[in-house]
Amino acid sequence: MPTISEMLSTHPGELFAAKDALSACVEACFECAQICTSCADACLAEEMVAELRYCIRTDLDCADICNATGRILVRQTQPDMSMIRAQLEACRAACKACGDECEGHADMHEHCKVCAQACRQCESACEKLLSSLK
Amino acid sequence: MPTISEMLSTHPGELFAAKDALSACVEACFECAQICTSCADACLAEEMVAELRYCIRTDLDCADICNATGRILVRQTQPDMSMIRAQLEACRAACKACGDECEGHADMHEHCKVCAQACRQCESACEKLLSSLK
Amino acid sequence: MPTISEMLSTHPGELFAAKDALSACVEACFECAQICTSCADACLAEEMVAELRYCIRTDLDCADICNATGRILVRQTQPDMSMIRAQLEACRAACKACGDECEGHADMHEHCKVCAQACRQCESACEKLLSSLK
Amino acid sequence: MPTISEMLSTHPGELFAAKDALSACVEACFECAQICTSCADACLAEEMVAELRYCIRTDLDCADICNATGRILVRQTQPDMSMIRAQLEACRAACKACGDECEGHADMHEHCKVCAQACRQCESACEKLLSSLK
Repeated sequence: MPTISEMLSTHPGELFAAKDALSACVEACFECAQICTSCADACLAEEMVAELRYCIRTDLDCADICNATGRILVRQTQPDMSMIRAQLEACRAACKACGDECEGHADMHEHCKVCAQACRQCESACEKLLSSLK
Repeated sequence: MPTISEMLSTHPGELFAAKDALSACVEACFECAQICTSCADACLAEEMVAELRYCIRTDLDCADICNATGRILVRQTQPDMSMIRAQLEACRAACKACGDECEGHADMHEHCKVCAQACRQCESACEKLLSSLK
Repeated sequence: MPTISEMLSTHPGELFAAKDALSACVEACFECAQICTSCADACLAEEMVAELRYCIRTDLDCADICNATGRILVRQTQPDMSMIRAQLEACRAACKACGDECEGHADMHEHCKVCAQACRQCESACEKLLSSLK
Repeated sequence: MPTISEMLSTHPGELFAAKDALSACVEACFECAQICTSCADACLAEEMVAELRYCIRTDLDCADICNATGRILVRQTQPDMSMIRAQLEACRAACKACGDECEGHADMHEHCKVCAQACRQCESACEKLLSSLK
């Protein structure tokens, strides 16, 4: 299966950011969106679901924000940089909130441990891409 | 058909913001997401599509951001306010960029005129909700 | 705020289906997507959340399917009818499953009552549009 | 970065399908969604954009359908199999339509070549998962 990073290299125009930081952030956003969607579902299946409401809600929000951010970063044609920067800030905030929450019970739930890792890496990838855009 | 605003009144918990500002923003986000998706498609069908690249791209981005924002605003259970505020800022930036672009050729394309109206109203609804959250 | 049905009238090309059946289905898909997203969140806030796992899961699935279906129906430019028909079938199946579930406890939860209505209307709108396409 | 396949192994309940066919299909759906989003944007940047309208439109549809399908397949908690089967059929139809189109000008556009590969693999992964569910 081809990857989205390989795909980005086929764009007929120029990329709006350095290839490495951009690819890393695109991949992190989509992977985090998928893992948060899965974590919300795994939390829902836990016996203690009533204590995982904030985790489920934050997972769902983080998945939505990461997915939208990934889709916007994939597009290279005539980007509006103020919109992209604002969306990267929102994605960083979402990954921070969700990573903080999942980390808090990572030793109880393997899915939250994996989700916390994905959120931290996406938070960091957003930060690096944001720095490179300034 | 029931509306999302009626639905919000059935939530068993408290809403995280004033009902009016929240409902108005939720409705504006979803309507704007739909209209931007439609505007991108209408631009694609225009003979002068090659001159509408920036408009199409901005429509697609704005649709993604508005849809994610609407979904997050719909959820009332234990919200993370820093994430919500950051996403509302991103949505305001997206609607500003897309509204500016569509307004610029609103007299040539009826779909861009309608889309500019939707973007302006969503931009304003995000601003009002953001002010009310401070 | 302009509506998506008004927006469809501004498309420079021909609509791929009768305006009334198409508009009704587009609106039903998006409204149902929003209401299912809200119902999942309202169920999550209920004390008896542990008994609402199937409802929450089905709400989330139905929201995803309705949103994708709505976006595809909005686009009028050179449609692939086999894809559209298959997606309408999937949307009908999703609305049936979610409507059946929500109807089952509509008298206990106002949000499930509203959600069941939205699902039934979307199921019916998909059926009507499918019939009109044959 | 953890992958969605690793994440699926952490679910507290049983998977609704054989792990290999399920993981392969989930990954194919999300990868295809991303690559179709990118192909639509790359086509938009081509000089001959006016001849790529059907390709762009089909890319956008296929991205929406693959993303919704991936999200539904990720969830393991109390699935409704009739909805899942119908959505897999729609995804197979979308990947067939988009793969056929992109293959047709794969020798002219590298992005369409990569996109055709992604569509074919997703089409095949949907077929295999569908067969395994019967």
